[in-house]
Amino acid sequence: MTEELLVAEARMLSESREDPRSPYFRGGTLGRRRFMLSSIAAGATVAASSRRATAAPPGSVQREVPTDPSKVLGAPLEDESYGLRSQFETEVRTRFKTSTPHSSWTFTPLEHGCGIITPSGLHFERSHAGTPTIDPRKHLLYVNGMVNQTKKYSIRELRRLPSISRIMLIECSGNGLTEWSKPTLKTVQGTHGLTSTSEWTGVPLSTILNDVGVRSAAKWVLAEGNDGAAMTRSIPIAKAMKDCMLAYGQNGEAIRPEQGYPLRLMVPGYEGNMHIKWLRRLELSDAPFMTREETSKYTDLLTSGKAVQFSFEMEAKSVITSPSGEMLLDGPGFYEITGIAWSGRGAIKQVDVTVDGGRNWKVALLQSPVLPICHTRFRLPWQWDGKEAILQSRCVDDTGYVQPTLGQLVAVRGLNGPLGSIYHLNAIQSWRLASDGRVSNVHYY
Amino acid sequence: MTEELLVAEARMLSESREDPRSPYFRGGTLGRRRFMLSSIAAGATVAASSRRATAAPPGSVQREVPTDPSKVLGAPLEDESYGLRSQFETEVRTRFKTSTPHSSWTFTPLEHGCGIITPSGLHFERSHAGTPTIDPRKHLLYVNGMVNQTKKYSIRELRRLPSISRIMLIECSGNGLTEWSKPTLKTVQGTHGLTSTSEWTGVPLSTILNDVGVRSAAKWVLAEGNDGAAMTRSIPIAKAMKDCMLAYGQNGEAIRPEQGYPLRLMVPGYEGNMHIKWLRRLELSDAPFMTREETSKYTDLLTSGKAVQFSFEMEAKSVITSPSGEMLLDGPGFYEITGIAWSGRGAIKQVDVTVDGGRNWKVALLQSPVLPICHTRFRLPWQWDGKEAILQSRCVDDTGYVQPTLGQLVAVRGLNGPLGSIYHLNAIQSWRLASDGRVSNVHYY
Repeated sequence: MTEELLVAEARMLSESREDPRSPYFRGGTLGRRRFMLSSIAAGATVAASSRRATAAPPGSVQREVPTDPSKVLGAPLEDESYGLRSQFETEVRTRFKTSTPHSSWTFTPLEHGCGIITPSGLHFERSHAGTPTIDPRKHLLYVNGMVNQTKKYSIRELRRLPSISRIMLIECSGNGLTEWSKPTLKTVQGTHGLTSTSEWTGVPLSTILNDVGVRSAAKWVLAEGNDGAAMTRSIPIAKAMKDCMLAYGQNGEAIRPEQGYPLRLMVPGYEGNMHIKWLRRLELSDAPFMTREETSKYTDLLTSGKAVQFSFEMEAKSVITSPSGEMLLDGPGFYEITGIAWSGRGAIKQVDVTVDGGRNWKVALLQSPVLPICHTRFRLPWQWDGKEAILQSRCVDDTGYVQPTLGQLVAVRGLNGPLGSIYHLNAIQSWRLASDGRVSNVHYY
Repeated sequence: MTEELLVAEARMLSESREDPRSPYFRGGTLGRRRFMLSSIAAGATVAASSRRATAAPPGSVQREVPTDPSKVLGAPLEDESYGLRSQFETEVRTRFKTSTPHSSWTFTPLEHGCGIITPSGLHFERSHAGTPTIDPRKHLLYVNGMVNQTKKYSIRELRRLPSISRIMLIECSGNGLTEWSKPTLKTVQGTHGLTSTSEWTGVPLSTILNDVGVRSAAKWVLAEGNDGAAMTRSIPIAKAMKDCMLAYGQNGEAIRPEQGYPLRLMVPGYEGNMHIKWLRRLELSDAPFMTREETSKYTDLLTSGKAVQFSFEMEAKSVITSPSGEMLLDGPGFYEITGIAWSGRGAIKQVDVTVDGGRNWKVALLQSPVLPICHTRFRLPWQWDGKEAILQSRCVDDTGYVQPTLGQLVAVRGLNGPLGSIYHLNAIQSWRLASDGRVSNVHYY
């Protein structure tokens, strides 16, 4: 994507917020959803009702709603079933308005999440040529280059090997890219929704590398996808041997098509685009491959004009998901402040929350289990007095790294692109809660 | 359900295995699925192809399959989406052939699972009057009886309270009920599929009980569902205050309709039917309520003719899910033996696996995190020599309880019903692997 294109797209995104068809429009899907977490606005209820009258939301089936459910029989159990969600649940992944829907991304609606698992149907997407349809019985993984023996593996062969499972996050390095210079997207789905957590199952990459035999000169592994973009990234051999995984399972079933079915390379804690989806080939070499996605893209331009390449690790980050942008609180009283924190380097050690823009901080409760390279749910009970408040969260990971303010991050990284910078924005997020209960995305530092 | 009905249903189930329309028929869905984990039989491939030609499996969308996915654009990203699974994935929950589909149960296909999370669409079901359709904006939870103040709560009010999340199992006390006297169902889906694990989110029940004020005389809590059966169970007040949860979230989104949408009582480690779904009322009293589901049902008849009532806790249990019944191994060579273990009393401490019917045992690897009252995935690498083998797993929980053999269990419990006994079968499961690679359900002790 060129800078000009990014500018154009940022404009489109900005305009689309005034377009009732846009998911960012306040009266759109996200607006309609607010009643679940905050107040029931008459307009929102009407919108939801009119939708139900026409068709069930994605992932649900329309059923008649009895006046008293305990006075009638419910739906019978089917002989063969794969259950869907309630027709009253309408949250969806929303697409960033890129010029083509084949090279685009969709955001997880974090404001409606609970716990740490992301429903597989709402896991964020980023693809460079759409979602390929792949027959798992025909799919092969080739391993070549600086190996003792070139080999290929079927999915069936991979599934017979010793497996591991890990509850783990993926975050797109572009998560928050619109937020560098000014607050742009209105909801936490837009500002932070390019990260999700699943339980992944597969084969340690080291098992395959040991099977083919890595030559001593090999220092890098190229991973290549079977999509129309033939997406490629280079991974250091040390990381490949340490904890990478060839994943075929997600949340207890086969990996979903948009997540790389039937095989995805997991690169724990590294930027999302390195987790090559629809994985078809690994090539070993003594140098990085300098692919398009690690030269013209996915590098971090500095103020000096130089760019940082191979900035793999996603640094510690946190965000309050409720209350968050576009929510409308009922008025003064008790609220639970909750959100998620994560680090590509390890486990979250502490999350602090402020309601006065950083003058006072309180330590939030962390929901166990607190797992490395995984979303961690934090919570803080709060009595809102009805006055304006600036809500922020700040996390520390077990390496001692402290999530920076936006000011601290910009001082190092600069604002070099059409949107400021692009990748690896992990600054503290601010939500302004107005005295009328409305929550909005602000920059405050 | 009368004993006569159980006999009739066991017969129906037995007959249905010879019926090609039955999920238990070897040529049926589960037969077609075998190629994913074991060998590709020509017949199975044809069956799968013919199905794809007609309609996509439940929970998927049919797309054209290109010869080379990397030479064409994939499916575009939708503006609003809720993702589904691949059209090549066909596992389903299958229904036990009860005389009415409104009072029935469906089994999780454990043989295809990986990790510990059960996909929400495949979480087992047990309902006594079908799945009610409930509008969450109208649903109320009433709390009455021996309380200082009778109160009612909307879902919106409950969602504002301090919340907790927990990755936790539910097991139906009838899990394995057909297996007491002789091996009956052919797959692990049938023998053990009435247990599933999700991440549940909600409000501690103690929060609500403290809010209404429990009178000192109150010793039991009645929980009542909003389904056509008005399902009811009594729970000791100590358990209610200790760790019960009013759950509205499952695997990061709203609880699924068949799991109790919009509200379910979670009673960690206790038998599944106490986790009252579609929860509408709690009543406090000084004595248990002696409801139908804790007098004529869900009690354990002993050889003496007396019955054990209020046998709440699900004791430690484990099962090998692969290789398991109806699978067909490719021939001698490497296999990973894997399965799940769990205990209603706490965490799993150890799982042992034998391939010779108990003469020799090896300690299996436990996948972290090992959580209390949660499925724990175990794994053991194994080189099969091609000779007949009897595969078993045996678990120990952190109270020191050791999973019994079927002989040990029957010696205490007896065989008092038409199927032997009914509830709380937690004995060691045996799979016979024949020299031709076929795996079958056997009793071996």
